[in-house]
Amino acid sequence: MALQDPKYSVPTTVSPEAQAFLANPIDMSGIGGPSPQTDEEWYALIDGVNSQFLPIVEAMIDSAPVTIEKREIAGVTVRIITPENFPQDRQDKVLINLHGGGYAIMGGELSIMEGISIAASGGFKIICIDYRMPPKHPHPAAIDDGIAVYKAVLEHHKASDIGIFGASAGGGLTAAVALAARDQSLPMPAAVVLNTPWSDLTKNGDSYFTNAGVDPVLTSYDGGLRGMARIYAGDEDLKHPLLSPVYADFSKGFPPAMLVTGTRDLLLSCTVRLHRALRSAGIEADLHVFEAMWHGFNAMPEGRQADAEAVQFFEKHLGL
Amino acid sequence: MALQDPKYSVPTTVSPEAQAFLANPIDMSGIGGPSPQTDEEWYALIDGVNSQFLPIVEAMIDSAPVTIEKREIAGVTVRIITPENFPQDRQDKVLINLHGGGYAIMGGELSIMEGISIAASGGFKIICIDYRMPPKHPHPAAIDDGIAVYKAVLEHHKASDIGIFGASAGGGLTAAVALAARDQSLPMPAAVVLNTPWSDLTKNGDSYFTNAGVDPVLTSYDGGLRGMARIYAGDEDLKHPLLSPVYADFSKGFPPAMLVTGTRDLLLSCTVRLHRALRSAGIEADLHVFEAMWHGFNAMPEGRQADAEAVQFFEKHLGL
Repeated sequence: MALQDPKYSVPTTVSPEAQAFLANPIDMSGIGGPSPQTDEEWYALIDGVNSQFLPIVEAMIDSAPVTIEKREIAGVTVRIITPENFPQDRQDKVLINLHGGGYAIMGGELSIMEGISIAASGGFKIICIDYRMPPKHPHPAAIDDGIAVYKAVLEHHKASDIGIFGASAGGGLTAAVALAARDQSLPMPAAVVLNTPWSDLTKNGDSYFTNAGVDPVLTSYDGGLRGMARIYAGDEDLKHPLLSPVYADFSKGFPPAMLVTGTRDLLLSCTVRLHRALRSAGIEADLHVFEAMWHGFNAMPEGRQADAEAVQFFEKHLGL
Repeated sequence: MALQDPKYSVPTTVSPEAQAFLANPIDMSGIGGPSPQTDEEWYALIDGVNSQFLPIVEAMIDSAPVTIEKREIAGVTVRIITPENFPQDRQDKVLINLHGGGYAIMGGELSIMEGISIAASGGFKIICIDYRMPPKHPHPAAIDDGIAVYKAVLEHHKASDIGIFGASAGGGLTAAVALAARDQSLPMPAAVVLNTPWSDLTKNGDSYFTNAGVDPVLTSYDGGLRGMARIYAGDEDLKHPLLSPVYADFSKGFPPAMLVTGTRDLLLSCTVRLHRALRSAGIEADLHVFEAMWHGFNAMPEGRQADAEAVQFFEKHLGL
């Protein structure tokens, strides 16, 4: 696997925390490395990566001013995050989160990672969907779970009070769930936020090449990503628009969207191509690209800025 | 000098014209090459590069449905581009253009290149400022010329009917003129469009490194860019906010801004850092990043899309 190329020195144009990270990136070699061949090997990889993140999530849960309730909605496991100080004007609003992790990792207890910071910083109630994943549950299980929860939420909320967001695979899945909802003639959510969305499961997109070894976290498509695309897609074509939303026809409608990426992100092209596809179809779509940031920089101060943009975007579109 | 690294193959995710260009980029080695040492060497470089572009501009003039009038405004040479079919609703609006070219090249007849396509596609009248440039006229001559024309235009137009736009050095200069106007307590223009703005004349910004040899046109900071920064700045610190607007304090006000770049742009970081600086100050700022595009991709179909975004942005902010 291609680790970060040492020729790219640490830029001074990012936060001190990001400089420290870029000087000494965390080892995500489990994701970037060679692809497992059997279900057992997959679950060993998944458990290994998840166990790296568990203490981080537990610390987040301990420190965030939120309550978390695990339950089922429409047969799907969710965790509902409610801010301790829940602003009156947001109590009829709800955000749905679809977590990242290559459609394979970051499930279970880890699925609240992205939701927790938006709940805490934005004062929103978040429903984090612990959607089914491969190898046991390939496409379309994740989309089916997303749609099932969305339909259940629509029974108690106006669509104009609902937002959906997700990062990485969760960003691609957020787009897919919105497209599937549209195709089922469900009302569109008020807005979606797609953070470094994995919008193209095939190795098309310039940054899969130009940012290979430049992104310190997601160092290459080959190996982990290619393998996760394969086990997620099952028998479906990787270019199916519900798997790779960059190929969808957005002229038939899509919610206002905000997209986030960084200049070092291996999924920079996934993000900007999806932004252009939306804009070319006349969809309102805001893009934020962060200096020298990589795939999933949520833990950095720059991540707080991205969260603030997301909160502001949801406030605008959910009538706050 | 670092030419385009052959390891970056041509992406399939751009227009056929862009694929052809990336497979066989134009020779801009005069800009990327070693920096001239004397004024005579500078003018030889400038004349050489300009003569490459002259036939392109002459062909644009021949084919575009516009008229062009050369005149002086407040002692500054300008060329006024008027659409042949000048829509009634735009006749009280005007856009000011500050051309690109590293503050050294693309002056004179070439200064209409960016204006002509916005005039033709958007139906706007464009005043293209042929501002004074180094080595003879270093900073602050260009800003002084920009302000002189802006003040003269304000005598016959409401600020809310005026937009300013520019690319590369012209993007940095557009930001600088808006900042200088603000500091002189002039009313702000309704909107600015900053296309791949050279917002940091110092070699700070991650893409000066990560996109060196990836951008097929502006292949490196060292040599041409470094030399042009030096002759433009004269005795001033390169980090002066009117030279490198990324260091400006935007919390004191700035017009709504649209920024354009590409994922291969050597000035990708210049663009996204400026976007973040604006957003962090609460300024309305839209960002558009084009897949695999380089510094100044105006001639490509992707450039037409960027123009269309610029026209739409000006229409919105000039009350159309």
